[in-house]
Amino acid sequence: MRVTYACVCGSDLHPYHDLEPTPEGRRMGHEAIGVVQEVGAEVTTLKAGDTVIVPFAWSDGTCAFCRDGITTSCVHGGFFDGAPSATQAELLIVPEADGTAVVVPEGTDESLMPSLLTLSDVYLTGYHAARQGQVGPGKTVTVIGDGAVGLSAVLASKELGAETIILMGRHESRTDLGRKFGATHVVAERGDEGVAKVLEITGGEGSHVVLEAVGHLPAYEQAYGIVRPGGVISRVGVPQYEEAPVGFASLFGKNVTLTGGPATIRAYLEAAIPQVLDGTTDPGQVFDRELPLADIAEAYRLMDAREALKVLIRV
Amino acid sequence: MRVTYACVCGSDLHPYHDLEPTPEGRRMGHEAIGVVQEVGAEVTTLKAGDTVIVPFAWSDGTCAFCRDGITTSCVHGGFFDGAPSATQAELLIVPEADGTAVVVPEGTDESLMPSLLTLSDVYLTGYHAARQGQVGPGKTVTVIGDGAVGLSAVLASKELGAETIILMGRHESRTDLGRKFGATHVVAERGDEGVAKVLEITGGEGSHVVLEAVGHLPAYEQAYGIVRPGGVISRVGVPQYEEAPVGFASLFGKNVTLTGGPATIRAYLEAAIPQVLDGTTDPGQVFDRELPLADIAEAYRLMDAREALKVLIRV
Repeated sequence: MRVTYACVCGSDLHPYHDLEPTPEGRRMGHEAIGVVQEVGAEVTTLKAGDTVIVPFAWSDGTCAFCRDGITTSCVHGGFFDGAPSATQAELLIVPEADGTAVVVPEGTDESLMPSLLTLSDVYLTGYHAARQGQVGPGKTVTVIGDGAVGLSAVLASKELGAETIILMGRHESRTDLGRKFGATHVVAERGDEGVAKVLEITGGEGSHVVLEAVGHLPAYEQAYGIVRPGGVISRVGVPQYEEAPVGFASLFGKNVTLTGGPATIRAYLEAAIPQVLDGTTDPGQVFDRELPLADIAEAYRLMDAREALKVLIRV
Repeated sequence: MRVTYACVCGSDLHPYHDLEPTPEGRRMGHEAIGVVQEVGAEVTTLKAGDTVIVPFAWSDGTCAFCRDGITTSCVHGGFFDGAPSATQAELLIVPEADGTAVVVPEGTDESLMPSLLTLSDVYLTGYHAARQGQVGPGKTVTVIGDGAVGLSAVLASKELGAETIILMGRHESRTDLGRKFGATHVVAERGDEGVAKVLEITGGEGSHVVLEAVGHLPAYEQAYGIVRPGGVISRVGVPQYEEAPVGFASLFGKNVTLTGGPATIRAYLEAAIPQVLDGTTDPGQVFDRELPLADIAEAYRLMDAREALKVLIRV
């Protein structure tokens, strides 16, 4: 496919910091909308000229785990970024194309493309957090992290009927968008102070649901500090740690449930597209900058410096 | 209350091994049936002469967490064992008596007392594991641990409609009772070999639900090795560790949910008593020895040496 829209993800910043230089470089990016150029001999549901959304992971749509809706564990699946293909590019190879790509209806207004692009990862990752966290009417939800995924988790929580939404973040332009998306409270404090603030807001009881959209250990520790007994911590920030507290003093004693993982975007995509098309949801507001593919390095710099929340790339 | 039946729990063996001697000793035990001797001035639902079941934790039944059903997090709650009271004794003080103790109908046959006593902890702890693990029809459930809690988890899984129940344990007399309780497979292997065996039984897909009834880190590691992507690990073995793997390679990558905690017995007790009385469930089979209170030290020895599965104490 010919990529028409891509973007930079918070998780792209990890290799931006840590990746060792290599002579051949590495393909980057995992979010895209584009136009099908050519299909493989076995592809049956797509044709040249179709505009499609591609989730950050490919999947066959037919294996036992795909049928369970756990598309990110597809037995023939994989993640974009690196080989064989990645989305911050002019052209993209989509493995398992029938299972992976979803067609956007012909004639869809270009102004909807940013919101549709968020269905490739960021918005549906926030939605995955909220859904796995059992967000619903009457619930108090705390979102840790005011990046684009955290703000998406606020929006998804609002749409799932959460009563109170506490956003933990300290970048005012971001938390302002969080309020617009449905946050009822903003807590700028971190660590013990942040925990105390959330407990105060919840009358000492803690938050039914905590959506952790950061991926660093302090955010995890904050999560079990503020979760209500019997509550749920749902993680979608890719953990930058392997070991963490799970014993009596953290999760077990309070009967806390820990859930989350790579968002199973593909399982949500068909239901989400119409909601963008009919205006029910408008997650494209997370894009606050737009650059051409030639300026991709500047896009990374802007996001790394937190000068941009999320950069849309026009290819 | 005057204790009539008590018993020794697998978790009593931790202090049996590790507790430092003290001049005054320590009260032990947290499972009991007995007869009310005297009630406090504010007690309204109990009277002298009532036969009652006492859960391993006391709770007021009225606080926000009790109303949520998370009775083990009651703001006025606590755990028996140690001060102020414990159940391997002639007499027991029951704090928050109205919230804690539940009356057994007058005239209940003495032969049902062992099964009713399991509602004080062991059976309902197995039930808590299964319920938190979302055991239900069509599910494959693996139970790690062939102690009395593990076997109770097998029985509860059977009652909740699990299709396949794999019991991991290597004490034949125990796994035989596990088969009687509903286990369809027994896996004696541990560690990597045990994981390989469960994967083989599940066609390489893993177990929808893993009930971890041991509490040691190798059992936890076994759990994430055998759980199916999108599945649930439910722990009721009190963790003898605080830190454990939770990152991409263990829980996150497979979208695994980790749940469990101290069983919220009190929230289940009213519904469970009639099921024992009408013979729907017969969890008292976990008792394979009976001793008088005077022989309590022998009861500990028998369980520690695995000569007994669970010892009933007649007081």
